[in-house]
Amino acid sequence: MQRYFLTKEAFKGETVTLPSDVVHHIGTVLRQGPGYEMVLLDGTGVEYACVVTSLEKKSGEAKVMSSRQATTELPIEVTLAYALPKGDKVELVAQKATELGVHHLLLFESTRSVAKWDGKKAPKKVERIQKIMQEAAEQSYRAVVPTCTYISPKELQQKIDGYDAVVIAYEESAKEGEQSAFAQLLTQLKPKQRVLVITGPEGGFDVNEINQWTQAGATACAFGPRILRSETAPLYALSAISFALELNRSYENG
Amino acid sequence: MQRYFLTKEAFKGETVTLPSDVVHHIGTVLRQGPGYEMVLLDGTGVEYACVVTSLEKKSGEAKVMSSRQATTELPIEVTLAYALPKGDKVELVAQKATELGVHHLLLFESTRSVAKWDGKKAPKKVERIQKIMQEAAEQSYRAVVPTCTYISPKELQQKIDGYDAVVIAYEESAKEGEQSAFAQLLTQLKPKQRVLVITGPEGGFDVNEINQWTQAGATACAFGPRILRSETAPLYALSAISFALELNRSYENG
Repeated sequence: MQRYFLTKEAFKGETVTLPSDVVHHIGTVLRQGPGYEMVLLDGTGVEYACVVTSLEKKSGEAKVMSSRQATTELPIEVTLAYALPKGDKVELVAQKATELGVHHLLLFESTRSVAKWDGKKAPKKVERIQKIMQEAAEQSYRAVVPTCTYISPKELQQKIDGYDAVVIAYEESAKEGEQSAFAQLLTQLKPKQRVLVITGPEGGFDVNEINQWTQAGATACAFGPRILRSETAPLYALSAISFALELNRSYENG
Repeated sequence: MQRYFLTKEAFKGETVTLPSDVVHHIGTVLRQGPGYEMVLLDGTGVEYACVVTSLEKKSGEAKVMSSRQATTELPIEVTLAYALPKGDKVELVAQKATELGVHHLLLFESTRSVAKWDGKKAPKKVERIQKIMQEAAEQSYRAVVPTCTYISPKELQQKIDGYDAVVIAYEESAKEGEQSAFAQLLTQLKPKQRVLVITGPEGGFDVNEINQWTQAGATACAFGPRILRSETAPLYALSAISFALELNRSYENG
């Protein structure tokens, strides 16, 4: 069933006014009209089963039939801090990370990031990524749309203190045969806790970056013994978090 | 350190004759010569620490300094059967699946596959994918190069019997809230056992396909409560297998 995110304010009564992009999608793209059933989401985790009651060229209304708390969100809140990679990999990661349940995407320029986003470029890029994440959230049955923010390395450093656990994907840990830090860390998490996963650019992290973050309480981890590409490590982390906390009943959250 | 796959036959003595593509890469791409240290692999799981002893324009030799069994392969043998997706997603999945440890990639046309590979097209496509997988295997520190084969749906059906466990990624299982089959199945695997993971095209699997496979012993599983895209499900499966069997010590293989 088609799913659309609206603003929270749209759900004040039994009747919902449909925004113009949703009207366009239902009427022009799907060629549907009154009687069409769909799911509308308020972005806070509630989903509404709705039916279109009227649809004109530029306006439309739907009636709320029922509502319920969505069950498609990860039991913990995951923030991914992804060091700017080359090219359009960041868009791939934004889309896939949304499907896999990420809540916040922080993009930052790490020491070895080749890509540079100057002051003018960043807002446009973030806007585009935010749109990709909204579409991915609708398609993957998410109940909230993850956020995307561009931050400085200094801001990232300051944020580390605010999480219940901070994981760094570090390829030197993989080469050294480190094999259990990430799994151990996940066993200790309780529902609703906040986790930050930091993953690097093509060249990996500089040892000074790793030291700064670990001194602030982060843990350098291997995601298996193989060396993963920049865009693969975040997807491994999120898949593993879902597996451990949503499918594996031996974990606290499972 | 740079890694190259050679044939098994290349490692008969202490001196290894370098094939022309490796000679070209060392000499022209990396601008290195005698004295250059690298890792050569025989594709069966052994890695050789080597040093270049001579390098001409089209030929070269290296000396084996030491050898050891590689430790970068998954403890079980994973085959991914991926229903042909649209466009070049199959190349993305081949690359990422290699990084994540897959051993065999089987491509097949499922009921809802939009892409069609006719008799002429398949061998060329497979050759290209095999090349992508070799490069990904070298970059990700794999010790074997996974294979890629194009098979018919009938051949896939016949193969199901030959595995210790067969997992189908089924989005209807996700929608119904199925949450533990995949994790339970992984707990029962012993080292070196063979697992087949079957994942679908954009439109998902037809219920008849699911029935045929489950009647042959396969298990329909959800990979978390969200609906994953065609190219995301295989990466989830492989990441979860690595996490469960390589990082998580509570599993048989861990």
